[in-house]
Amino acid sequence: MGMTMSQKILAHAAGLESVAAGDLIMANLDMVLANDITGPVSIHEMDKFTKKGVFDKNKIALVPDHFSPNKDIKSAQNCKCMREFAYDNDITHFYEVGQMGIEHALLPEQGVVTAGDTVIGADSHTCTYGAIGAFSTGVGSTDAAVGMAYGKAWFKVPSALKFVLTGKPAPWISGKDIILHIIGMIGVDGALYKSMEFTGDGIQYLSMDDRFTIANMAIEAGGKNGIFPVDNKAVAYIESHMSPEKKAQYEKTGKKPYTIYEADEDAIYDETYVIDLSTLKSTVAFPHLPENTRTIDQVGDIKIDQVVIGSCTNGRLEDLEIAAKILEGRKVAKGLRVIVIPATQQIYMDAMEAGYLKTFIEAGAIVSTPTCGPCLGGYMGILAENERCVSTTNRNFVGRMGHVTSEIYLASPAVAAASAVTGKISGPAELGL
Amino acid sequence: MGMTMSQKILAHAAGLESVAAGDLIMANLDMVLANDITGPVSIHEMDKFTKKGVFDKNKIALVPDHFSPNKDIKSAQNCKCMREFAYDNDITHFYEVGQMGIEHALLPEQGVVTAGDTVIGADSHTCTYGAIGAFSTGVGSTDAAVGMAYGKAWFKVPSALKFVLTGKPAPWISGKDIILHIIGMIGVDGALYKSMEFTGDGIQYLSMDDRFTIANMAIEAGGKNGIFPVDNKAVAYIESHMSPEKKAQYEKTGKKPYTIYEADEDAIYDETYVIDLSTLKSTVAFPHLPENTRTIDQVGDIKIDQVVIGSCTNGRLEDLEIAAKILEGRKVAKGLRVIVIPATQQIYMDAMEAGYLKTFIEAGAIVSTPTCGPCLGGYMGILAENERCVSTTNRNFVGRMGHVTSEIYLASPAVAAASAVTGKISGPAELGL
Repeated sequence: MGMTMSQKILAHAAGLESVAAGDLIMANLDMVLANDITGPVSIHEMDKFTKKGVFDKNKIALVPDHFSPNKDIKSAQNCKCMREFAYDNDITHFYEVGQMGIEHALLPEQGVVTAGDTVIGADSHTCTYGAIGAFSTGVGSTDAAVGMAYGKAWFKVPSALKFVLTGKPAPWISGKDIILHIIGMIGVDGALYKSMEFTGDGIQYLSMDDRFTIANMAIEAGGKNGIFPVDNKAVAYIESHMSPEKKAQYEKTGKKPYTIYEADEDAIYDETYVIDLSTLKSTVAFPHLPENTRTIDQVGDIKIDQVVIGSCTNGRLEDLEIAAKILEGRKVAKGLRVIVIPATQQIYMDAMEAGYLKTFIEAGAIVSTPTCGPCLGGYMGILAENERCVSTTNRNFVGRMGHVTSEIYLASPAVAAASAVTGKISGPAELGL
Repeated sequence: MGMTMSQKILAHAAGLESVAAGDLIMANLDMVLANDITGPVSIHEMDKFTKKGVFDKNKIALVPDHFSPNKDIKSAQNCKCMREFAYDNDITHFYEVGQMGIEHALLPEQGVVTAGDTVIGADSHTCTYGAIGAFSTGVGSTDAAVGMAYGKAWFKVPSALKFVLTGKPAPWISGKDIILHIIGMIGVDGALYKSMEFTGDGIQYLSMDDRFTIANMAIEAGGKNGIFPVDNKAVAYIESHMSPEKKAQYEKTGKKPYTIYEADEDAIYDETYVIDLSTLKSTVAFPHLPENTRTIDQVGDIKIDQVVIGSCTNGRLEDLEIAAKILEGRKVAKGLRVIVIPATQQIYMDAMEAGYLKTFIEAGAIVSTPTCGPCLGGYMGILAENERCVSTTNRNFVGRMGHVTSEIYLASPAVAAASAVTGKISGPAELGL
């Protein structure tokens, strides 16, 4: 019986010839991730284990990004806990408070996760790394603790949904529109515990940043993971983003430090959806669920108070480039706060070199240091009573970014930037673009 | 009987020929300032007045900078309150949440305060504007409310201390070292309710940014205000930083929109201190008072966890330039967080253009959007238990930046940047500079 791409990776991780949906397996992990919210919980759990220490100091990533640079005393204490753990265990991939960036942008950029890897992370958007052909999924802090100590995690092998993407998206249509369209179509539990496997000739038109955005939001449809085939574009990304250990290993052995898995031709999918990307319009998820989608022509007149461009979903260089193209020579609408958050220090630098940061500030936006901040109601742009925000983030649940009466509209960087100029939810077309 | 510079301004503001120390006067105000902590309190107080509305929509400055971009729901609500008040009253100088910068850097930069003005602000560091020859002082939120409604404030006319600054400071010695030296000398109540009037040939060697830093910290010696003579350097600053109204008024009337007051030769001072700037060394204020100063050679070996370069005291362009000169080509010490916060969007832009921001990030520091943030324990770098921070801010009180056991060492940008490299409190000399 054929296997899906995700099943192939899991079979390898479990040391098995083959697996099938529903099998319970014990997988060896290539990377275990935790952040400043979940990491300290995992670390305290580890204290209870009879086994002491970590399974492999090179296979744990600790990224303080949610409430850091430290929002308050509690977050400072949490970061201190992680730092001490990282030093005690000589963790290679510990990224000091506020010095590197948002975990799901950072790990692929630093080459810490790669194609063929099995990755768990105590953060729901760990599924992001499917964009470069990894099986990666979010887990609870206790599973992450077990992973950090033993390097293993058990899984029920997921069945899969196949999304055949065809055609070329229109200008301004990006990964965010595609994944919002899909979530709108199948609902927030439409892929519950299933792999979302993307394929089709349309993928060639998707940049790596598009793919990261799409894989990132698999969890918003309930997916266990989201995954893309590893084409030449993905290989080019992977080879130009390799961690120092991987590079050293490659140079020493000549063996490429990543593995490309492909779905079998006879792999079984619960459903197959064919999506013609050329027909998609800018798509916005209305409060209070990512499935409440409307295309931009159905949005109506919705005045907004804030725009956020950033997060693990849409804080990458291409996202900022799109926003800068729209904001260049334009001004933020009066009364609006526009907060741009490059996802990593490297992206910040690249955006600065490219002139995007200047464009944002000249337009009247602010540029934050990399942080998850407002996305999860942490800080750096919390909403007051009845305020509305257009955000390139991933969740628009009740009260997620602040007051319980506030509203979040999820959108692409293009829509977010256009809305920043008009002061209401708008597509680039409203600016004549 | 001769008047001090401050007394001359107050006499003018009160419409009197002359005033003397101890007189109670009612002064007309040129500007009333409030921020996102104090503003909402003032606004609620104003609701109780029989008089409704503000005295002059051009003479009120509202700057949300302390907990903004909004740290949490409460700060979001406070900013919303200010915004609604600003729109209802058509306040000219309302600076939208997180879009402009820190009040005491912003107001002089925007030309909203100027020489000869009498200014009150519901923030203790309002005394900053003495650097450009204004009488400016911090008040409580109720006094600010009265000021916003009636344009008046009563004062007991302060007596004065005279600080005669002579000689030229050595390289790396800046305004921060001078004011810390003075506070160390006279103590945190050494100038209680007195004007600190700076004079002497040494002033010519002080940049405007040095003077802002010195005037800013007058309150840390208990001073009612700090003030500098308006020399050519100050005039050049004032004339190149003029608000649109002031510029229009100037063009229309031909009358310069600022007034230079000079102390009378026979003005009376409670004390006169002569300070030879050429003898000063880098100076650090140890926990937990700004008066606990030591020169850099007396500091000893103090390991640190964090460095903050920013605030209304030292977040100006020259401060960042000094830090960049030291950090260029160097790396932040392992385990240290270094947070650089340009004080305004303009300063951010200028620092970006000059390459300083790139230098900071390449060194391993982070660059925040303008905010008061960590200075007052707001966010963006709060300290955990027992952590030590070298900070260019103005107060090192117990728990000010976080946990009650944390420690703050106040220093110049040069010392902060050198310490960022070594990981312990250090002067530039330790780097061979």
